[in-house]
Amino acid sequence: MKQLFLMAAAFAAMTATAQVTEDFKPASTNQEGKQYPMVNSQRMVRAQLKAPEATSVKLDIGGVKYDMKKDAEGVWTGESAPQDEGFHYYQLEVDGASVPDPGSKYYYGASRWGSGIDIPAADEDFYTVKNVPQGSINEIYYYSTVTQSMRHGYVYLPAEYYSNPTKKFPVLYLQHGMGENETGWSAQGKTGIIMDNLIAAGKAVPFIIYMDNGLNARRPGEQPMGFGGPRPQGPRPQGAPGQRPQGPRPQGAPGQRGPRPGMGGAGFAQMARRMGGAFEEVLIKDIIPMVEKNYRVIADTEHRAMAGLSMGGMQTHGITLNNPTTFSYVGIFSGGTISPDELTDAKDFKATNKVLFMSCGGKENMGVDEAAKALKEIGINAHSYVSPETAHEWQTWRRSLYQFAQLLFK
Amino acid sequence: MKQLFLMAAAFAAMTATAQVTEDFKPASTNQEGKQYPMVNSQRMVRAQLKAPEATSVKLDIGGVKYDMKKDAEGVWTGESAPQDEGFHYYQLEVDGASVPDPGSKYYYGASRWGSGIDIPAADEDFYTVKNVPQGSINEIYYYSTVTQSMRHGYVYLPAEYYSNPTKKFPVLYLQHGMGENETGWSAQGKTGIIMDNLIAAGKAVPFIIYMDNGLNARRPGEQPMGFGGPRPQGPRPQGAPGQRPQGPRPQGAPGQRGPRPGMGGAGFAQMARRMGGAFEEVLIKDIIPMVEKNYRVIADTEHRAMAGLSMGGMQTHGITLNNPTTFSYVGIFSGGTISPDELTDAKDFKATNKVLFMSCGGKENMGVDEAAKALKEIGINAHSYVSPETAHEWQTWRRSLYQFAQLLFK
Repeated sequence: MKQLFLMAAAFAAMTATAQVTEDFKPASTNQEGKQYPMVNSQRMVRAQLKAPEATSVKLDIGGVKYDMKKDAEGVWTGESAPQDEGFHYYQLEVDGASVPDPGSKYYYGASRWGSGIDIPAADEDFYTVKNVPQGSINEIYYYSTVTQSMRHGYVYLPAEYYSNPTKKFPVLYLQHGMGENETGWSAQGKTGIIMDNLIAAGKAVPFIIYMDNGLNARRPGEQPMGFGGPRPQGPRPQGAPGQRPQGPRPQGAPGQRGPRPGMGGAGFAQMARRMGGAFEEVLIKDIIPMVEKNYRVIADTEHRAMAGLSMGGMQTHGITLNNPTTFSYVGIFSGGTISPDELTDAKDFKATNKVLFMSCGGKENMGVDEAAKALKEIGINAHSYVSPETAHEWQTWRRSLYQFAQLLFK
Repeated sequence: MKQLFLMAAAFAAMTATAQVTEDFKPASTNQEGKQYPMVNSQRMVRAQLKAPEATSVKLDIGGVKYDMKKDAEGVWTGESAPQDEGFHYYQLEVDGASVPDPGSKYYYGASRWGSGIDIPAADEDFYTVKNVPQGSINEIYYYSTVTQSMRHGYVYLPAEYYSNPTKKFPVLYLQHGMGENETGWSAQGKTGIIMDNLIAAGKAVPFIIYMDNGLNARRPGEQPMGFGGPRPQGPRPQGAPGQRPQGPRPQGAPGQRGPRPGMGGAGFAQMARRMGGAFEEVLIKDIIPMVEKNYRVIADTEHRAMAGLSMGGMQTHGITLNNPTTFSYVGIFSGGTISPDELTDAKDFKATNKVLFMSCGGKENMGVDEAAKALKEIGINAHSYVSPETAHEWQTWRRSLYQFAQLLFK
């Protein structure tokens, strides 16, 4: 099966190479002044790297490694097959070393800081910076009583937070996915830009957004969290030379993994309830009180929302059900679904919830429409959204935030 | 001369290798969970990269390329000679390709996003995150009437900006150096951390800091600025494949360049006066009004300061003399000096100025002590600071900010 996929991908790459349209332009995600990588109207990525003594350079994007070719000056150039609209993580492979492309800006995902590229999208207007009233993305540190350490987060404050100095605002707590961190929503997610544009257009009410790291919260002495909760305690293998190779994982298909299609059974629900881990405690005991103390916040359940993507959506699922009177609005982006069965005895959750939003990409089947329909039948104000022609990637989540934000605090 | 230097460096590297102390620890600037690069108590950097098919991998730091060695698993490891305390840009070279180290976080400097490493310093306490009242570093966009485009900047707001919602604050406009951008002061400069610690210790009064990009401001149709001002207009060479190799410039000595030692003559003064370029107009016409409109600012000359490092110091020199009644406090970090000759006819500047601060690293001789002495003799409240054992690099500028901030708005 995997071999078949690789063969198909190779064939697609060959076919695409034969039909390359020469209208490549530098990507919007490039470093200032850098010409490469480029994207053409077919949404193919062309990368370039000077590596005079290398014998092999590859462009590693979307789970496929594309051979690049060297010219007489030692400059390697090569193209990928067409990519989906929106943001993708990628890297270059130079003689077996997986490294960031020196031409791109860097983003945290796939458990590393590395290259990312934005493929122009028909609907990119909603996440394009415009001359509208501007909020800000604020980098902060705060002390956590749970981890007993200083932690790092980001706060979106809408323009009106500054212009209307006595007004108080609702808050959305918004979480990233597996292998990502607290920078994801503001950088590749374009949260601040999406919100400023929505608020300026009158489509969303102004609210604060708080973004934290949902993976690195550890109680003192606790080991790093795996996908299903804290790992067994004990010493980790020591990082001796030669034992821990650096760089992104060789299976370079970031963004392609996530909850399985149609997940929503009892086992999934149980897993979701445990997904919060120490982060759940940090959120409830440290983050929410900190946000409500430091900012002008309407500090009640009706003005508190939580959402997340993929793992962050599963955390949202678990944390909002575990704390049923804390949040009135719940958003699960590519993070599976909540089933009516789960809510049978969840009286407090049902009484508190004002909107339950579930979304996914059109290329991943998570059954969000069906789930919303079933939840509506038991009286939940459920909404669903399927992002056209996108997979388990950031374009799905940018669009999900755009949709979800319009439902909040109204 | 250059050959002699390279020979000396190579000899130093050989000597150092013979005496390596095996107490290497992961650098504080590493990506989460990454073991390499490491630093030992001799301040040597040990890098590591998996590159099974490569024939040459080098660690490129401080202007010297150090050969790394491959083990049986295809993992390359190697050390640099001892480095100065503080922050340095660096990169790896894989078969002739200059690429970021996948183990480090990335910083903008030397005209590229790339690897950086912090060497532990005896005085690092002043830029270490502590559990004290926390301000924030706010990422913003604003519209510039001069460039007719949206621009990008950062605002430091002290903790009291949030906790004391009617108080107004003074503002320092703080600029980066050549090849850097608006992210430099908050990321590698650690501005927010330094200020929070200073304010908590009662050593500085709370003030706002605004940080912009002093290099990319262009009037419509204008070409990118060079070191001495706008370049002649006309089409730039097109970026055809093979013509514009990507990656940091091969002479990898970022941070080593800057104004020449002891610069302060009439020619230097004239150059400094032209350094602002379109940025000067953006600062005066767009940024200062934007900051004073959007934030609670004491909007008068006595509560307005400007400072910068290297090129940003030269811009500060020029802009504060060109706009003599706009700023009361002036800081020039590794950006040369102001001479008494320049102030002979500068009545407004002399009447307005409350502090004129000049600093540099101990390993660069910019004559700041002598310049301050001469300025004091003509009645200027001049201060100088020489950062012990540092060159034209960020440790000098972190310390300069720490010193300068204590003199402001008192």
